[in-house]
Amino acid sequence: MQLLRLGAPGSERPAVRTEEGVIHDLTPVTADIDGAFLGGDGVARVRAALTAGELPVMDDTGLRVGPPLTGIGKIVCIGLNYSDHAEETGAATPAEPVVFLKTPDTVVGPYDEVLVPRRSVKTDWEVELGVVIGRTARYLDTDEEALACVAGYVLSHDVSEREFQTERGGTWDKGKNCETFNPLGPYLVPAEDVGDPQRLGLRLWVNGELKQDSSTKNMIFPVAEVIRYLSQFMVLRPGDLINTGTPAGVALGQPDPKPYLRAGDVVELEIDGLGKQRQTFGAA
Amino acid sequence: MQLLRLGAPGSERPAVRTEEGVIHDLTPVTADIDGAFLGGDGVARVRAALTAGELPVMDDTGLRVGPPLTGIGKIVCIGLNYSDHAEETGAATPAEPVVFLKTPDTVVGPYDEVLVPRRSVKTDWEVELGVVIGRTARYLDTDEEALACVAGYVLSHDVSEREFQTERGGTWDKGKNCETFNPLGPYLVPAEDVGDPQRLGLRLWVNGELKQDSSTKNMIFPVAEVIRYLSQFMVLRPGDLINTGTPAGVALGQPDPKPYLRAGDVVELEIDGLGKQRQTFGAA
Repeated sequence: MQLLRLGAPGSERPAVRTEEGVIHDLTPVTADIDGAFLGGDGVARVRAALTAGELPVMDDTGLRVGPPLTGIGKIVCIGLNYSDHAEETGAATPAEPVVFLKTPDTVVGPYDEVLVPRRSVKTDWEVELGVVIGRTARYLDTDEEALACVAGYVLSHDVSEREFQTERGGTWDKGKNCETFNPLGPYLVPAEDVGDPQRLGLRLWVNGELKQDSSTKNMIFPVAEVIRYLSQFMVLRPGDLINTGTPAGVALGQPDPKPYLRAGDVVELEIDGLGKQRQTFGAA
Repeated sequence: MQLLRLGAPGSERPAVRTEEGVIHDLTPVTADIDGAFLGGDGVARVRAALTAGELPVMDDTGLRVGPPLTGIGKIVCIGLNYSDHAEETGAATPAEPVVFLKTPDTVVGPYDEVLVPRRSVKTDWEVELGVVIGRTARYLDTDEEALACVAGYVLSHDVSEREFQTERGGTWDKGKNCETFNPLGPYLVPAEDVGDPQRLGLRLWVNGELKQDSSTKNMIFPVAEVIRYLSQFMVLRPGDLINTGTPAGVALGQPDPKPYLRAGDVVELEIDGLGKQRQTFGAA
C-alpha cells in the first residue's frame, strides 16, 4: 500500500495506491496525511475503508505528486551513518550517531525543482531512507519499542551545501536548510508492508550516471538503534521524519574537481519498494 | 501592546494587554497568534479593533500563561553572539554567525516546569532575545529590509545540555532539543513598540542569585545582521523564531564544580520591556 498526496503545492489531496495499482481518494478517511492521521491508527483505517469499498477511485491524470506527508514537526538527520561515506569525507566512523536537523519547510515533492542556492559552490546529493514516526518515542529501552514507533518509510533526498555546512563556522545546519533541500516521496509505505528496513537497496544517478549504489544493511546504526538513541535526547512525535544517512558516492567524496551540482543537472534516486525521484536543479 | 496566549497547554486563547494593563480577548480578530496572523497584518488589525472597541475585556484569573506564539515553523539559534560568552566557553569570537536549530516542540510557557533530561549532568541556562518573523526573508540585501521582516520580540530561554551538546559527537543540536527546553514569553511585543532591539537589558537568576546581566547592545551580530545573514542560507517565514544568543554567566563558564541545574532549582529571567519568566526545574 502506498500513501501519497496529489495536486498543486499547498493543495494536495491524500490518496492511496493499492497493490493492484489503483489510486483511491483518501478524503473519506482523512483530510490529509500528517502526524494526527498516522498517530490515530490511520493506516489501519485506510485498510478497513479499502476492504469495505468506501474509497472512490481517483483519476490522477496530470496531477503533481507532492511530498507524501504534511505537517512535519521536525526532521532529524543522522550524519556519517554508512562507514564508506564517513571514509570518503575523511571523517572517523562515529562512536554514536551524529545528529543534525533540517527544517520542515525545506520539503518539496519528489519531482519538484531543487534550487542551487545563490553563491553556492558545493551543492551535493544524498539518497537516504526516511523514517516516519507514528507513535511518540521518549526514553525507549529496546529496539522492539523503537520499531513499534515507525509508521512507515519514504525515499528522502538530503540535499546539502558542503561549503555552507563545514566551512562557514557553526554547525552543519547552515548547509542543510536551504529552500527546496529535502525532496520527499513519491509515497509513504506503511512499516508492515516494508518489513525489515535493513535490506533495501538505494541508488542515485546524476545526469544518468550511477553515483551511489548501496544497501541499508550497511548502516552503522540501524533504524531501531537510531530511534532508541534519539529518544534519549528528544521526544519523537507522530509526523516527525528521520533521515537515516547516506552511503558513499556523494560529490564531496570524488576526486578534484568534485562534480558539485549546477543548474540544469538532473538527479534521480530510488530505494527498493519506495519508488523513484527525479529533480532538475535550477538557480535560486 | 503585549500579545499573549492564556489557558491550558494546547487550548490557549489569544489575548492582548494594553498599555493600561487591561486584557482583551483577541478571538474576534484571530483564532490564534501564529505566522498567518502575524504575516497577515495581524498587529495592525489588533490596534484597529482595540480603537474601535471591538475586543471584549477578558478575565485572566487563574489562567496559565502559554507561549505567546504557536505554529512556529522553525527556531533558528545564534551561538556565541556575545564576546564575553564566547570567551567564557573557551571559543574564539566567531567571524560570522554560528547557526544551530531547536525544534518547535521544545517550546513551553514562561512559568511551565522545565525537565532536566535523564542522564543529564550538565543542564545549563541561557537568557536570550527572541525575534519573531512577520514577513518572508529570502536573500535580503540590507539591514532595513531585515528589520522590516520582524513582527516582534519575545523573551526566550535557550535551555542547553552541555554534555549532549559538545561531548557526544555531531552537532550542538543534540543538547538543544530536549523536551521543554525552550520556555517562551510571557508575551510578544510588536517591533514598533520595542524600537531599537539593541538597547535592551537582559538578566537571569538561579535560585535568586544573579548569573547573567548584560545588554543586547553587546551582541557581536545585531538582529538586523543576523536576519540578513540567515536569509542567504534559508528562507525565514512568518511565525519563525530566532534565538539571538546569550551573554556571559552560564554554568559552563563558571569555575569548577560548575553549578549545572538539578531538579528543584528555580531559574528567573527577564528582558527590559519583554517581561519575566520563572521556571522550577523537574526531572524527566
